[in-house]
Amino acid sequence: MGNVETLVVPTRGRGLVEITALVQECVGRHLHGDGLCTVLVRHTSASLVIQENADPSAARDLEAFFARIAPERDPLWTHTTEGPDDMPAHVRAALTATTVSIPVLGGRLGLGTWQGLFLFEHRRRPHRRELLVHLGG
Amino acid sequence: MGNVETLVVPTRGRGLVEITALVQECVGRHLHGDGLCTVLVRHTSASLVIQENADPSAARDLEAFFARIAPERDPLWTHTTEGPDDMPAHVRAALTATTVSIPVLGGRLGLGTWQGLFLFEHRRRPHRRELLVHLGG
Amino acid sequence: MGNVETLVVPTRGRGLVEITALVQECVGRHLHGDGLCTVLVRHTSASLVIQENADPSAARDLEAFFARIAPERDPLWTHTTEGPDDMPAHVRAALTATTVSIPVLGGRLGLGTWQGLFLFEHRRRPHRRELLVHLGG
Repeated sequence: MGNVETLVVPTRGRGLVEITALVQECVGRHLHGDGLCTVLVRHTSASLVIQENADPSAARDLEAFFARIAPERDPLWTHTTEGPDDMPAHVRAALTATTVSIPVLGGRLGLGTWQGLFLFEHRRRPHRRELLVHLGG
Repeated sequence: MGNVETLVVPTRGRGLVEITALVQECVGRHLHGDGLCTVLVRHTSASLVIQENADPSAARDLEAFFARIAPERDPLWTHTTEGPDDMPAHVRAALTATTVSIPVLGGRLGLGTWQGLFLFEHRRRPHRRELLVHLGG
Repeated sequence: MGNVETLVVPTRGRGLVEITALVQECVGRHLHGDGLCTVLVRHTSASLVIQENADPSAARDLEAFFARIAPERDPLWTHTTEGPDDMPAHVRAALTATTVSIPVLGGRLGLGTWQGLFLFEHRRRPHRRELLVHLGG
């Protein structure tokens, strides 16, 4: 049978927060052999990405890319009542992932050597973001 | 053991169709406790997004964003035999999701308060879109 | 109980490599009934897409789209020590998928008629890419 846990991740405004270790801890509480770990971010203005965890310049450039492709105060946006960073946040979330499923090997997330799992905060202000983590056989 | 069901969703041409309730019904037929619900859209010109379900202006702006980033009749496209909306549809599908996996809590999809699951139709004409839904423990 | 297998896919530089048959073989070794197949690419400069498998012009146009949206030598990039194709590769990976989960019906991947699963190589040089495949009930 699967298990579901809720995790809460504080963010400091726009940018990536690595959550690999946090999710690994959660895996370790439930799975000792092989299985599958699925993470859902329960928000529409934050998302998930699996990215390089070694060099912070990759994270900065990713942020700059999204700021260019879906800028604030774009004349395209009509959904503006929640602030200028809200609609860009929804677009960024649609372009990245809201759920990811990672195979687990011997109780460890099967990510590659240079991969980290990140919560991608898209709003300017700090938030507390809720994740659901499902662990199955 | 998991169960797989096929759902059919009619669309009215380009845009988002909320399918949260339809998928929840399907979950309710198979899962009463915790588990995992995976949805696959079986097409390359429609996709899935988890987005804000409250304000229709967010859905309109998302549609406008994709129309700008992958427009019809872009000189870049050589794959044009199936119509001017076909290649943009493939690009939109690649940028969003073809599969999503949502943890289930007590028989309910674990989406956040403001999240809805949407089928994103990328062709101009109405279609009947097939989804596969897997429910596991 | 689930099973996890490692697959290795050689690429010939930037572009799509269809892996549907390879993953189907792996499914066939473990699942004869219904279930779920999850694939993770263990790299940050290659990714996964489910796309049209019939006409190679769709794959070429998809490649051209990503070359335009995240070009090499873009003044935006500061992460350049691993070569001009490295940061565009990370952006492409973030915009597509690192993991996909496909329901399995009677031992067969439940993809639609025109869908294929592709490994998307984002670096210029050929690589050997590792995938983890999880098969569950």
